[in-house]
Amino acid sequence: MNYTKSLQGKHLITTQDWGKGELDTVLGLAKEMKKDRFHHPLSKSLENKSFFMFFFNPSVRTRQSFEVAATELGGHALFLEPKSMRLKTATTAGETIEDATRVMSRYACGLGIRILEDKIPHYGAGEDLIREYAQYSDIPVVSMAHDKYHPCQGLADIISIQEHLGELRGKKTLLIWGHGALARSWCSVQEYLLIASRYGMSINLAYPEGYDLDPEVIEQTKKNCEQNSQEFNITNDVKEGYDGVNVVYSRNWMSPQAYRNNKLHKEEEIEKALKFKEWICNKEKMKLTNDALFTHPMPIDRGNEVTDEVASSSRSIIYDVAENRLHVQKAVMALTMGEY
Amino acid sequence: MNYTKSLQGKHLITTQDWGKGELDTVLGLAKEMKKDRFHHPLSKSLENKSFFMFFFNPSVRTRQSFEVAATELGGHALFLEPKSMRLKTATTAGETIEDATRVMSRYACGLGIRILEDKIPHYGAGEDLIREYAQYSDIPVVSMAHDKYHPCQGLADIISIQEHLGELRGKKTLLIWGHGALARSWCSVQEYLLIASRYGMSINLAYPEGYDLDPEVIEQTKKNCEQNSQEFNITNDVKEGYDGVNVVYSRNWMSPQAYRNNKLHKEEEIEKALKFKEWICNKEKMKLTNDALFTHPMPIDRGNEVTDEVASSSRSIIYDVAENRLHVQKAVMALTMGEY
Amino acid sequence: MNYTKSLQGKHLITTQDWGKGELDTVLGLAKEMKKDRFHHPLSKSLENKSFFMFFFNPSVRTRQSFEVAATELGGHALFLEPKSMRLKTATTAGETIEDATRVMSRYACGLGIRILEDKIPHYGAGEDLIREYAQYSDIPVVSMAHDKYHPCQGLADIISIQEHLGELRGKKTLLIWGHGALARSWCSVQEYLLIASRYGMSINLAYPEGYDLDPEVIEQTKKNCEQNSQEFNITNDVKEGYDGVNVVYSRNWMSPQAYRNNKLHKEEEIEKALKFKEWICNKEKMKLTNDALFTHPMPIDRGNEVTDEVASSSRSIIYDVAENRLHVQKAVMALTMGEY
Repeated sequence: MNYTKSLQGKHLITTQDWGKGELDTVLGLAKEMKKDRFHHPLSKSLENKSFFMFFFNPSVRTRQSFEVAATELGGHALFLEPKSMRLKTATTAGETIEDATRVMSRYACGLGIRILEDKIPHYGAGEDLIREYAQYSDIPVVSMAHDKYHPCQGLADIISIQEHLGELRGKKTLLIWGHGALARSWCSVQEYLLIASRYGMSINLAYPEGYDLDPEVIEQTKKNCEQNSQEFNITNDVKEGYDGVNVVYSRNWMSPQAYRNNKLHKEEEIEKALKFKEWICNKEKMKLTNDALFTHPMPIDRGNEVTDEVASSSRSIIYDVAENRLHVQKAVMALTMGEY
Repeated sequence: MNYTKSLQGKHLITTQDWGKGELDTVLGLAKEMKKDRFHHPLSKSLENKSFFMFFFNPSVRTRQSFEVAATELGGHALFLEPKSMRLKTATTAGETIEDATRVMSRYACGLGIRILEDKIPHYGAGEDLIREYAQYSDIPVVSMAHDKYHPCQGLADIISIQEHLGELRGKKTLLIWGHGALARSWCSVQEYLLIASRYGMSINLAYPEGYDLDPEVIEQTKKNCEQNSQEFNITNDVKEGYDGVNVVYSRNWMSPQAYRNNKLHKEEEIEKALKFKEWICNKEKMKLTNDALFTHPMPIDRGNEVTDEVASSSRSIIYDVAENRLHVQKAVMALTMGEY
Repeated sequence: MNYTKSLQGKHLITTQDWGKGELDTVLGLAKEMKKDRFHHPLSKSLENKSFFMFFFNPSVRTRQSFEVAATELGGHALFLEPKSMRLKTATTAGETIEDATRVMSRYACGLGIRILEDKIPHYGAGEDLIREYAQYSDIPVVSMAHDKYHPCQGLADIISIQEHLGELRGKKTLLIWGHGALARSWCSVQEYLLIASRYGMSINLAYPEGYDLDPEVIEQTKKNCEQNSQEFNITNDVKEGYDGVNVVYSRNWMSPQAYRNNKLHKEEEIEKALKFKEWICNKEKMKLTNDALFTHPMPIDRGNEVTDEVASSSRSIIYDVAENRLHVQKAVMALTMGEY
């Protein structure tokens, strides 16, 4: 593969910001790196370089996959918690985001940021914050999941489905809401809608009434599907979306009512989500599909979002998706932050 | 030295699980690596690889020695605190140990786990947990100390004693309970009983009434001694065990009454331990020995477990033991997780 | 450049402890390393070695710059919080500083320590603690800021001013107290007084009545100035010190009354500091200077210590100073801890 330098310095907030060819470049390199994990020509592209990980929200999986990615490229990832930074707020003296970012640009080769629902006053505030860091940053900023998008999860989903199904154009996927004592972010499922539709899949989106996602994302997904001459159906029926699909993605998400008065009402959301017991992906429903793959970004709430039987079946690709987080992140980091 | 690959992928929960020849291989490589610390042929065996350290209990010494070990092999150790993982428990939704472990197996070259008394409901629960991780893990699991065993401490003890005494067969050691405002784990002392007896030492075990160790470990130690035709004596006398020994190991441990009703009663243990003021290793008692070495896994409670005079004497090998933690861990990691 | 080995093993508690030629060696190497950041001949001098960072006080900037420095030298920095070490105190059993330090000397190539006002009972206690660690340490101890000094900040200040002004002998600098909801350490400003006067600058020191610094540092600064035949003026006037200077350094610091009864009275200090609203560095005052550079160790409290206009002006060197923390620290670490 010929490694373009056109991605050097590029921020990754959502895959929708990138051209389809750019995403293909990432996926192509990720596949190469997966085959040749420790001896690929770009395996040293972050040698002695530092990647800063800003965890407004802690996360084990994301930290593991990014820290391992930096390590496997010869670099080093710093686990930083911004709560320990003396940043200026409405009520306290401290450093501005501009000052903090301009200094980090002198030290690091890239900056990852993770900020989720419970650290922000309203939906969209995390996205705004990431874009503010990106504005002042001379080094690439990559979202490690925020309230709105999760680009590396989306890339991992697509590469994993490609590994099992080959060309995705015309393939059908169901994204369906899952039951449980949970109030999960919109970031992974919204990213999936965008990238799956970019890659030419037709999409069934199913959820109980009251669980609409961001209208802007729905609108963009519709456009993506139209451009690829594919269908995009939304239903509130718990079974209908399974019909003939190639990939099922069952996952909980919170309702648009989760934020009120600048506060996340997580307990209420959990209580509400527990009522929809029929919204579990199980073997009977999977029989309606075209021998579909089962996918999920993990951690899975087994017995609620999906039965053990389906999650551990031979058609489940959950561990492949988790592993591919590593490979796509290595590719993104090498191409945007690396020296080669 | 000819580096066997037969240890690749092997878990290390206690040295008793490994063959004597396997332990010899580890100690042999550790000695080589100590002599040639940064340029040994296996110095790159973890290059760009990631070792996950799971600290259910924080620890500075263990973290330092494992993180430095990974670094000196060219790899990277991640300091992870499972409390920040959303793991399933009896009362909360979350990820199963199987799912967490299967994903980590895709990212890391090995998994270290440390879990001690205050994070478990009863003695043995830490061992059960480590063995559950090992069951689902495709990568080697190594205990970084748990309620029952501490294999790397045992290896460090033995290699240090070998450095000073040479062949251990027929040498005599005293393991004796120490006084103090403490309620320490059984892991280091139990591992010592097992590995010292494996290496042919005869053993005096001394403690105040009421401080029995795990009967299963005592039974195994007895068998190990029998196989080597060595003696194993247990006494409740504070002096008698010192007679003619070559190595004295004085250290506090908690009583079998520490757990009741699924809870560790640490304060009660400390109160109880404070009463046995005569159980301190001092110069007078050391005079009864055969010019014995003094050893301890550190941190030492000077003035309680042992006098300053003995701990800082020319016969004290405490810093050598601490240093050798690094070398034996490098050997274990290179042989079980490395590429060479 | 010819790399002297005479600095190997040397502690760095304050630049005043080092000879002027030694400081020149550090600055010379730092300039080389800045020009050739990833491929300098000493870029591998910490390869596979471990640098321990002891943060009694957390800090993002200092952690970033030291951890990146270790990484860029091929080494690894461990972020350690001594609160998680079971160290002996007046009231609890635990490990002595001697034991902890002797063991770390077996594992690490160097030890960084940061301890500031709120972790100590009185001014000077942090310095005493660092010197106690240094006393028992076989590896170099470097202050990452303590109550009294901040040597790497001082080195970064001087190298940055040199980059802009060339030879410093005879150049004039103003160090002036800054207003704000703050009670900042004396470490950076005291180090600046010492090193700026070592390098032959004449010094104006200006602060409101009641904000005297450490008399010992003032005395030493006076001596340094005398040795270089330069002036050292102290004033309580808010404007007079600006007259004709080449460099302005405006920064808040706490008063000598901050500690009483073994306690830091931070809230009182903040209340007091808020009264001096005229003590802000602004454009009008900068007009009194000889087109002076503006410097500050960051984080800046914009709008209080200095106006946005001055902090973001073309004469502001704040980001250069921040970046140079990295380069001087790399030079210090390579020369004191490295293998080359």
